[in-house]
Amino acid sequence: MSRPAERNSRVMRFASQAFVRSLCALGFSLIFGVLVSPVAAATRPPNIVIILADDLGYGDLGCYGHPTIRTPNLDRMAAEGMRFTDFYVAACVCTPSRAALLTGRLPIRSGMAGTEKRRVIFTKDPGGLPLEEITIARALQSKAYATMCIGKWHLDGGTGKSLPTRHGFDSYFGLRWSNDMEPAERNPPGAPRSLDQDPKWWNCALLRGEKIIEQPADLSTLTKRYTAEAVQFIRANKKKPFFLYFAHTYPHVPLFASEKFKGTSRRGLFGDVVEELDWSVGQVLEALRKEKLAENTLVFFTSDNGPWLVEELAGGSAGLLKEGKGSTWEGGLREPAIAWWPGKIKPGVTTHELACSLDLFSTSLTLAGAPLPTDRVLDGVDLSPILFGNGKGLRDTVFYYRGDELFALRKGPWKAHFTTANGYGSPGNPLKFEPHDPPLLFQLDTDPSERFDMAKEHPEVLADIQREVAKHRANLTPGKPQY
Amino acid sequence: MSRPAERNSRVMRFASQAFVRSLCALGFSLIFGVLVSPVAAATRPPNIVIILADDLGYGDLGCYGHPTIRTPNLDRMAAEGMRFTDFYVAACVCTPSRAALLTGRLPIRSGMAGTEKRRVIFTKDPGGLPLEEITIARALQSKAYATMCIGKWHLDGGTGKSLPTRHGFDSYFGLRWSNDMEPAERNPPGAPRSLDQDPKWWNCALLRGEKIIEQPADLSTLTKRYTAEAVQFIRANKKKPFFLYFAHTYPHVPLFASEKFKGTSRRGLFGDVVEELDWSVGQVLEALRKEKLAENTLVFFTSDNGPWLVEELAGGSAGLLKEGKGSTWEGGLREPAIAWWPGKIKPGVTTHELACSLDLFSTSLTLAGAPLPTDRVLDGVDLSPILFGNGKGLRDTVFYYRGDELFALRKGPWKAHFTTANGYGSPGNPLKFEPHDPPLLFQLDTDPSERFDMAKEHPEVLADIQREVAKHRANLTPGKPQY
Repeated sequence: MSRPAERNSRVMRFASQAFVRSLCALGFSLIFGVLVSPVAAATRPPNIVIILADDLGYGDLGCYGHPTIRTPNLDRMAAEGMRFTDFYVAACVCTPSRAALLTGRLPIRSGMAGTEKRRVIFTKDPGGLPLEEITIARALQSKAYATMCIGKWHLDGGTGKSLPTRHGFDSYFGLRWSNDMEPAERNPPGAPRSLDQDPKWWNCALLRGEKIIEQPADLSTLTKRYTAEAVQFIRANKKKPFFLYFAHTYPHVPLFASEKFKGTSRRGLFGDVVEELDWSVGQVLEALRKEKLAENTLVFFTSDNGPWLVEELAGGSAGLLKEGKGSTWEGGLREPAIAWWPGKIKPGVTTHELACSLDLFSTSLTLAGAPLPTDRVLDGVDLSPILFGNGKGLRDTVFYYRGDELFALRKGPWKAHFTTANGYGSPGNPLKFEPHDPPLLFQLDTDPSERFDMAKEHPEVLADIQREVAKHRANLTPGKPQY
Repeated sequence: MSRPAERNSRVMRFASQAFVRSLCALGFSLIFGVLVSPVAAATRPPNIVIILADDLGYGDLGCYGHPTIRTPNLDRMAAEGMRFTDFYVAACVCTPSRAALLTGRLPIRSGMAGTEKRRVIFTKDPGGLPLEEITIARALQSKAYATMCIGKWHLDGGTGKSLPTRHGFDSYFGLRWSNDMEPAERNPPGAPRSLDQDPKWWNCALLRGEKIIEQPADLSTLTKRYTAEAVQFIRANKKKPFFLYFAHTYPHVPLFASEKFKGTSRRGLFGDVVEELDWSVGQVLEALRKEKLAENTLVFFTSDNGPWLVEELAGGSAGLLKEGKGSTWEGGLREPAIAWWPGKIKPGVTTHELACSLDLFSTSLTLAGAPLPTDRVLDGVDLSPILFGNGKGLRDTVFYYRGDELFALRKGPWKAHFTTANGYGSPGNPLKFEPHDPPLLFQLDTDPSERFDMAKEHPEVLADIQREVAKHRANLTPGKPQY
């Protein structure tokens, strides 16, 4: 009985707003004798904006319980939209997570999963996201969407053959890799971990399209400049549908904030950077409102993987979840996620349905009226029933890969770990792999922190999960490894 | 710059509501020619309602980030009121925490601190909260407030000489002690920890006034019956100011939920119980609204101490904070706290100011126009500047006592631990005390999980904190131990 109450209590607070808005709209209609044709609105497919943070943890936003990081724009986005408690990414590190989000396919299928030795693609690798993979951008481009990628790509090894412009994006503005992957010659050992960063330690190239326009890029103004590009793209495309993939460089280390945010957060430099990211989200939503596009745009916010805990104070927090980036404990792959579409998504709803970044592919294509590819396995489902329908999701399982190995599987509330490991080693806590036979079994709804192994009590659940693994393996043809 | 934004973004959402309300009020005024005199409203002091949960953790509410416990009423209370991120209680276990809240004095001063061997008062102890202590109820009774205590008391050892009715409460309805302190003869060892509770294991006495009216009390309907009493008290006292101290029995173990809530939460029985508690809060606020008392009532919600972690799935979660009940790590004393007073407290504000349950004494007396006692040391400050003023608090320090020993002290964002220990021992994790010289030092704003000791980097902060300790000790006359 609490669920409808939860919905209603928040919905009620917005009802009066909606009422005032309706009155205003009616007023304008009567005064100017204009009525927007509902048919015209219905035939134009919605804009889609995906905003992706980098290494942001489950516990790093105000609306997910962080005590000192202030995220009023994301909190408001959640209050006006839908907040997910059980949203996952498809890999615990950068490259495979991004490949999965853009293609709707587990990275093992596209050759983008990496291995334990090489977990993300590096600057001199010959591979990249294969051109036969279909990204959301490519699919939406075929439906006459304007498409832009802003920010970090990390799906090309350095040949430039898999840059955003080769994958369906009309335009690109950003860094090809993580901000810690292009060190300057004078870069000292251990630099990423330092909170006291010197810009001279880094030599990142900023690209427009496929051309380097600034090197070393000024890392302290990146968020600001990315945001200006996003707002400009929105303004320039108000007459046609668009897809914006806005993949922030931060809060991945090394951390830099612009002058306006530096030193302003209680959480230190990490907080400054997240609060600037929050500001950026606010600017994007405000631009959509100003251009009167808000009610025809789905905005989805999440992160690529959990917090990089070994970066200590320069890394984030997974809240009550265990471990972080690089690990297949919950902190590695479960992420804050907020969906926003005024008038279409009910405001103020918290959903506990299972959902995954893999689902953004099917959801986007369906909204755009683009057919789903039938010549390949897709791992995502359409999120529409959760977002706009009866609230019940279509997803029942989550696969937790570490590189090319399946470490854990969630089915319903149950998660079985076949192998566990910390995300990264650190001096006091070296990397340690532990195979489990029988697997560890946790009931995540009652035990989100994965404290109490229930394997002995529930052999039937383990057997069911093992059947899911077998089914998955039978249906799996790994792609040619790209790095 | 994010702070005003945070305020404004939420405030804006309520502005239209307020506008609609104003229009309605104006409409009624015009129609009926009635205007409520602001003078009359100003001369009547406000009602005060304190709702206290038992063993609820920092991470156990939706609006503090719990992924599966649904607390729509408390979330709404926070959206309509003020949510604290840095609110503390004055002790890490039940009895001293309650003594402190009601008297505004550290329990060491009233003899209610307990010791490591006897942490809370037991059913055959001869002592209790001394009658020379002044409770909020006693002070407000002197200002013609109707006063009632509902729920768990735990400040009397069994003689009945320190029951609520002896401490300024006109009436009382509840259990004298924790629900695990009156076992039935057939109570099996380890019963509190069990999620599969049998009501026959318990023989708690339910009191009205000083009289036992039911034994064994039906523990599964307690929250429901407490709530009915609260609503009735509010209805019966709408013509005079009142003070209601509503101290829930739950989610302290053993857990029982009423039929309506049992088996309904994703978080299991613990979630059922917290969701019923949330329902209860909703009922109290709704009663205040219905009786048109909301705009003349301060409601404050918090808990007595952190989650009882050794109770495993029957205990709660401190979110990203370390440890829980019984410990002087943050999880032991930092609590969810929400203040609500429509029209007086700005809606939707999250405050990061330091505040403490000790402050509810000075705050309540000041609001009621009762003079603060001058014959004793008070440890609280008035929260009015945070709640209704410029937002800046008057508190700079927090004392972390374990029994009669000071284990840690927070000043500003810095916390020094002189001794650390886990809250309770458990089979795999025995109780372990560690003295620290130099003390451990954590910066809680940047490091809320107390991971990175900064003692070496900041000897000047440690020296300052040691001065605070000396000042505190010089000003300390311990009361006669009551148990």
